[in-house]
Amino acid sequence: MGFSMNSKPKIVTGDAGYVLEDVPHLTDYLPDLPTYPNPLQDNPSYSVVKQYFVNVDDTVAKQIVVHKNSPRGTHFRRAGPRQKVYFESDEVHACIVTCGSLCPGLNTVIREIVCGLYYMYDVHRVLGIEEIRRRGLKVAVAGIPKTIDNDIPVIDKSFGFDTAVEEAQRAINAAHVEAESIENGIGVVKLMGRHNGYIAMYATLASRDVDCCLIPESPFYLEGPGGLFEYIEKRLKENGHMVIVVAEGVGQEILSESMRTAHQQDASGNKFLQDVGLWLAQKIKEHFSKKQKMTINLKYIDPTYMIRAVPGNASDNVYCTLLAHSAIHGAMAGYTGFTVGPVNGRHAYIPFHNKVVITDRMWARLLSSTNQPSFLNPKDILRDEETQIQGVDGGSHARCENG
Amino acid sequence: MGFSMNSKPKIVTGDAGYVLEDVPHLTDYLPDLPTYPNPLQDNPSYSVVKQYFVNVDDTVAKQIVVHKNSPRGTHFRRAGPRQKVYFESDEVHACIVTCGSLCPGLNTVIREIVCGLYYMYDVHRVLGIEEIRRRGLKVAVAGIPKTIDNDIPVIDKSFGFDTAVEEAQRAINAAHVEAESIENGIGVVKLMGRHNGYIAMYATLASRDVDCCLIPESPFYLEGPGGLFEYIEKRLKENGHMVIVVAEGVGQEILSESMRTAHQQDASGNKFLQDVGLWLAQKIKEHFSKKQKMTINLKYIDPTYMIRAVPGNASDNVYCTLLAHSAIHGAMAGYTGFTVGPVNGRHAYIPFHNKVVITDRMWARLLSSTNQPSFLNPKDILRDEETQIQGVDGGSHARCENG
Amino acid sequence: MGFSMNSKPKIVTGDAGYVLEDVPHLTDYLPDLPTYPNPLQDNPSYSVVKQYFVNVDDTVAKQIVVHKNSPRGTHFRRAGPRQKVYFESDEVHACIVTCGSLCPGLNTVIREIVCGLYYMYDVHRVLGIEEIRRRGLKVAVAGIPKTIDNDIPVIDKSFGFDTAVEEAQRAINAAHVEAESIENGIGVVKLMGRHNGYIAMYATLASRDVDCCLIPESPFYLEGPGGLFEYIEKRLKENGHMVIVVAEGVGQEILSESMRTAHQQDASGNKFLQDVGLWLAQKIKEHFSKKQKMTINLKYIDPTYMIRAVPGNASDNVYCTLLAHSAIHGAMAGYTGFTVGPVNGRHAYIPFHNKVVITDRMWARLLSSTNQPSFLNPKDILRDEETQIQGVDGGSHARCENG
Amino acid sequence: MGFSMNSKPKIVTGDAGYVLEDVPHLTDYLPDLPTYPNPLQDNPSYSVVKQYFVNVDDTVAKQIVVHKNSPRGTHFRRAGPRQKVYFESDEVHACIVTCGSLCPGLNTVIREIVCGLYYMYDVHRVLGIEEIRRRGLKVAVAGIPKTIDNDIPVIDKSFGFDTAVEEAQRAINAAHVEAESIENGIGVVKLMGRHNGYIAMYATLASRDVDCCLIPESPFYLEGPGGLFEYIEKRLKENGHMVIVVAEGVGQEILSESMRTAHQQDASGNKFLQDVGLWLAQKIKEHFSKKQKMTINLKYIDPTYMIRAVPGNASDNVYCTLLAHSAIHGAMAGYTGFTVGPVNGRHAYIPFHNKVVITDRMWARLLSSTNQPSFLNPKDILRDEETQIQGVDGGSHARCENG
Repeated sequence: MGFSMNSKPKIVTGDAGYVLEDVPHLTDYLPDLPTYPNPLQDNPSYSVVKQYFVNVDDTVAKQIVVHKNSPRGTHFRRAGPRQKVYFESDEVHACIVTCGSLCPGLNTVIREIVCGLYYMYDVHRVLGIEEIRRRGLKVAVAGIPKTIDNDIPVIDKSFGFDTAVEEAQRAINAAHVEAESIENGIGVVKLMGRHNGYIAMYATLASRDVDCCLIPESPFYLEGPGGLFEYIEKRLKENGHMVIVVAEGVGQEILSESMRTAHQQDASGNKFLQDVGLWLAQKIKEHFSKKQKMTINLKYIDPTYMIRAVPGNASDNVYCTLLAHSAIHGAMAGYTGFTVGPVNGRHAYIPFHNKVVITDRMWARLLSSTNQPSFLNPKDILRDEETQIQGVDGGSHARCENG
Repeated sequence: MGFSMNSKPKIVTGDAGYVLEDVPHLTDYLPDLPTYPNPLQDNPSYSVVKQYFVNVDDTVAKQIVVHKNSPRGTHFRRAGPRQKVYFESDEVHACIVTCGSLCPGLNTVIREIVCGLYYMYDVHRVLGIEEIRRRGLKVAVAGIPKTIDNDIPVIDKSFGFDTAVEEAQRAINAAHVEAESIENGIGVVKLMGRHNGYIAMYATLASRDVDCCLIPESPFYLEGPGGLFEYIEKRLKENGHMVIVVAEGVGQEILSESMRTAHQQDASGNKFLQDVGLWLAQKIKEHFSKKQKMTINLKYIDPTYMIRAVPGNASDNVYCTLLAHSAIHGAMAGYTGFTVGPVNGRHAYIPFHNKVVITDRMWARLLSSTNQPSFLNPKDILRDEETQIQGVDGGSHARCENG
Repeated sequence: MGFSMNSKPKIVTGDAGYVLEDVPHLTDYLPDLPTYPNPLQDNPSYSVVKQYFVNVDDTVAKQIVVHKNSPRGTHFRRAGPRQKVYFESDEVHACIVTCGSLCPGLNTVIREIVCGLYYMYDVHRVLGIEEIRRRGLKVAVAGIPKTIDNDIPVIDKSFGFDTAVEEAQRAINAAHVEAESIENGIGVVKLMGRHNGYIAMYATLASRDVDCCLIPESPFYLEGPGGLFEYIEKRLKENGHMVIVVAEGVGQEILSESMRTAHQQDASGNKFLQDVGLWLAQKIKEHFSKKQKMTINLKYIDPTYMIRAVPGNASDNVYCTLLAHSAIHGAMAGYTGFTVGPVNGRHAYIPFHNKVVITDRMWARLLSSTNQPSFLNPKDILRDEETQIQGVDGGSHARCENG
Repeated sequence: MGFSMNSKPKIVTGDAGYVLEDVPHLTDYLPDLPTYPNPLQDNPSYSVVKQYFVNVDDTVAKQIVVHKNSPRGTHFRRAGPRQKVYFESDEVHACIVTCGSLCPGLNTVIREIVCGLYYMYDVHRVLGIEEIRRRGLKVAVAGIPKTIDNDIPVIDKSFGFDTAVEEAQRAINAAHVEAESIENGIGVVKLMGRHNGYIAMYATLASRDVDCCLIPESPFYLEGPGGLFEYIEKRLKENGHMVIVVAEGVGQEILSESMRTAHQQDASGNKFLQDVGLWLAQKIKEHFSKKQKMTINLKYIDPTYMIRAVPGNASDNVYCTLLAHSAIHGAMAGYTGFTVGPVNGRHAYIPFHNKVVITDRMWARLLSSTNQPSFLNPKDILRDEETQIQGVDGGSHARCENG
């Protein structure tokens, strides 16, 4: 885009502590742009519903849990079609850029952008490009967050997440059947999640067959009282078998430390061990064979690629359609530099930025469901409390409860 | 319960148009009840997260799309565990009553109520009863709305809905394959929805293979210009085949009229025809054979029982867990006469009542996706506008976008 | 084809009662046809395995259960590629004609014929035609039996059958869940099978949740001692619920009789009732409401179109590949007027004709598994014995055990 | 069992080269045992079908592809219930021993043995024991071959095989989607099969998305002309992506050699590398990064545990029922020291022993389907031909075509 993106945040304030974190608009840079009537108003599908166009003043509240007299807090611009658009259909060139790896629903998003532009706005020129070229032109940039891990702040969930959790059930179920079929059987399932444990957490809650779920947000240690090995031994003695789910981003520090001290310089050997699932499986085996003289039967399952390659389920398909349509409406209405996504269930345009706070209630539910210990020591908890946002409601909470 | 339920609504107001529609509490009837510390505070799972208990003043906003200076509107009491409870664990008798027919996730709800009471509150006495007996006792009544149709006002969605939409894809896909395999093939799929078309609408949007979706909220007629027969003929001439999805509650007036005039007094014959799917299939066949001399091949699929009997998917399993836990926390904290459910993604306690307004944006999206006509005439639209709630945001909107 | 097809059967006899029921060959009509080397011999894939070509004398035994001194019985020509072919690749026009309705695996058969001709025999011209034109040309006609019902004599099973049985489990499972969830619940599932009950029988055996399976081969009656109503009442009193599977071709005589006496002249009403599933469901409801004053809850499921439209499973995909390849090899080798299919697990060319005898052992297994009565009276059994083939082994037996 | 099992084979011969490889019978050791009428003859399910009992002389032909005057060859005793049994129901103690790891259908076999003994023979005492105790008692030993790999000679297929092939499709499909989504994408799927490639071969044929299938029966090498690396490079240049399926028993010699020379003494490192899938994936990555300067994207999928833990599909469920019933009938009739299984589609009792010859035709079909080279050099082929059984029909052929 020909104009600078590092503009200051657009903040609008109102009564009772109302704050709108607005997104850039083309008229911020080119004030005299002409507008055109939205072609949807002549579309028989949409003309039926007269209130279809979003009111220009509609905003979506980020803070949904409030007190009687608490400030109204942050809001975002509501997504949806506007009465006026800033592009003429037959002059629009739309470009789609995808980044990163596979994710269930990605094809749906692309199809819906193409079909939505075609059927809703009569835009026929849509290109896919591997880098976007920046020239001094009237360009609206709209982002749809793509991460199966669900690690996007503010928005309720990322697309593909529901499908991933659904498909992860297969692996957990297989681990459970394997573990149950043999004495001291341990099934270990590694699930996606480099920086958070959402998939691991939801899959564990949905399955109910998991005895221990390890996520990056909750540190743990292997040896000694309160450690993982102790818990494993306890569960095996109680139940005869157990299932462990581990998010891929778990225990990076322990793993690095373990690597460093192990003198395993060999390139290929190390490579395998950097996989936390293989590493953890190996550590558990070693502990129980060498130190414990307890025969365990560990089966390790890594379903990552089988999960990623699955087509989106019905829920994700509908969700991807909404994301694509919201992005189109926003770009056609002249907004730019925004990410689209549901905030408390309602689609909104969010300026590019953000950072998320650790989930809490959902994690407590999970601990209660698996009966695993927290693997935390008092000073961890204390530190956590201090960094906790002091407001009535952390932004991350909404995401947790939005199953 | 020994005390009257027909108490007046508990309304609390605050600044800037804040309204809390509160739920009854045992202390409204028995003011001097003793309280006890919530046993969760000694639970190692929950004690990790210090902010786990819900603040006594937390409320959830019903209005999520707002203007800068619009009134704050209706709120509900936030669901979740409280510091104080009004029951001693070893004195609690919990009773579970289920009403109506099967729904995916029902077993999960029951299991989670039983397990939640046991593990979170140490309550061991849980009974299932086919009618609840009312005696003058300290009883908290908590409802979890059970309807696969998603026809509950205020709350985002009903449990089992996601699973039903997922499973409905199979039937739609089969209808599509059948229709495509033969000249003038028509696949007709009847889906659940006595009073609304949510399942039909979401399944249609998720599938993208449907040419026409008929729902109770949008009236239609068969004959003449703008009617269904005309549209079918048009699609068959364009495409050679088509798929129609019909919600079970569709066209009850046309159907009754058709029954009355048909002189089909025979009991068993009539019974079959009262099924809107069979009736519609029959009407289409008759029209094209007798009046049109056009050979069509219609295949009718009714997947109702195959959808209902499926176990909940991962998303519904997690959702059912949250519903069950929220109900338990509310009842233990002394609230009564409430329904539990997510409002804008956040679980809340809602007083028993309500009525929903017709969905609009999602329906327009669907019309755009199927390219079907609206089957409405101008006076219908006018009437609809007049009854439309004049506020910034109808309560039903949130549900539509909450895929 | 320019030459008459009503030629006499080609019978070859050998020692010890050996009989070969051979198929026609082009040289029967055009004796001096030139031959060409099979192009497969230059194909690197096939050249690896030197014994790949079928020996010209190879035949497949129809009688597989024999006695020490029993005659060797009927044989068929073994399917597979021959050293010599009767067509030059670049002169071949292949035509594919499909008849009847959908069947899982049909697409695989067509794809494999096209791909097999292309990659194995370098034949590029393949046409699909809705009627075959008959001119005085060198034409080899090869048939691949297409019936999901498995009602082809001699060959082990028809393609799509495995997939249909697999998919039928879903409907039976749904019926079981529905029936179990309510007092006196009856789940009725109608499965394909106009003239036999193979799908119903295998689905029942695979599921183990069925209490009664009704198939065309085993007559039954509704009223009186030993009748279906009596059995239903017994099972409901014992178990509280039951599942009935009914093949679509069941009870045609009872149904016609019932139709005639019911004075239900109305066209549309009758049409619905001619569906045996709807008819049976209606009869059961009437019986228990009017005559028995016993409240039953019957749920009727017709999964036919959902079964037919499913893609072939892995087993059917491999099977369809073999059928397609066998047909290609036979036609290229100059054979004509034959059906291809496995006989006792080995693919063979079978002359167009045949008739099957009732299954017995598999049916007894099923009766034992469901614990249902046989609904036969002594004179039926007697008649059946008299018409039983007196040989060591009926042709149908092999099919039954070939799961 | 109190009597010696190392008895000589029981061979019976007949006319035209007929040979019966019979199984031991209790009366071989205890000649004067009393017999009892089979209780099935009073069972209403079985009494319907008068010819239900197997004729005492029935045998099943092993050789199914024959010539007009070829010898009749080997036969086995037909499985099924006999008129006379050698045990009284209320004196029978049945013991079930399972060996080895999980296999789809294993639960069905056990359930059907228990239910079959109960309902068919009124035997109520069934024990599961981890070793069988040998005392001088009247004991009949019946085996049901359990190996998901399908590596049992003579019998058509092992139970669980169909389910495994079906489930393997998921992994292959995921590998295909992953490979296709990126430039030079390679999907590698490891499938079960320590000593043969049946699962890999059938899954490849069923899927049609595989470019290369490596099985133990067909040796291959990595480097140089005709090697795997050359083929990979060729396919990537042609198609841009490829899918490789590798049976776990593949290339053990290359792998051992590679291990020995790699100086990778570290225990844990080696352990991972002994997995042929990980090893092959690593070798391919190394080759293309170091030697070829060609950037490839390899995704490795090991679905083993997810396949093994799946419940049997419908086809395997019916098959397991037949195996269990055949074993029961044989043991009750006094046979011992036998394995039960279908021979050319008909269940038979086979004496404990055997060895299989390499598959050929099915493998050629696969090579044709993937278009991969054979990776064989001329001397391998020559050697293979010399060891090929010279008869009309190798025992292994039947298994290959019995999909």
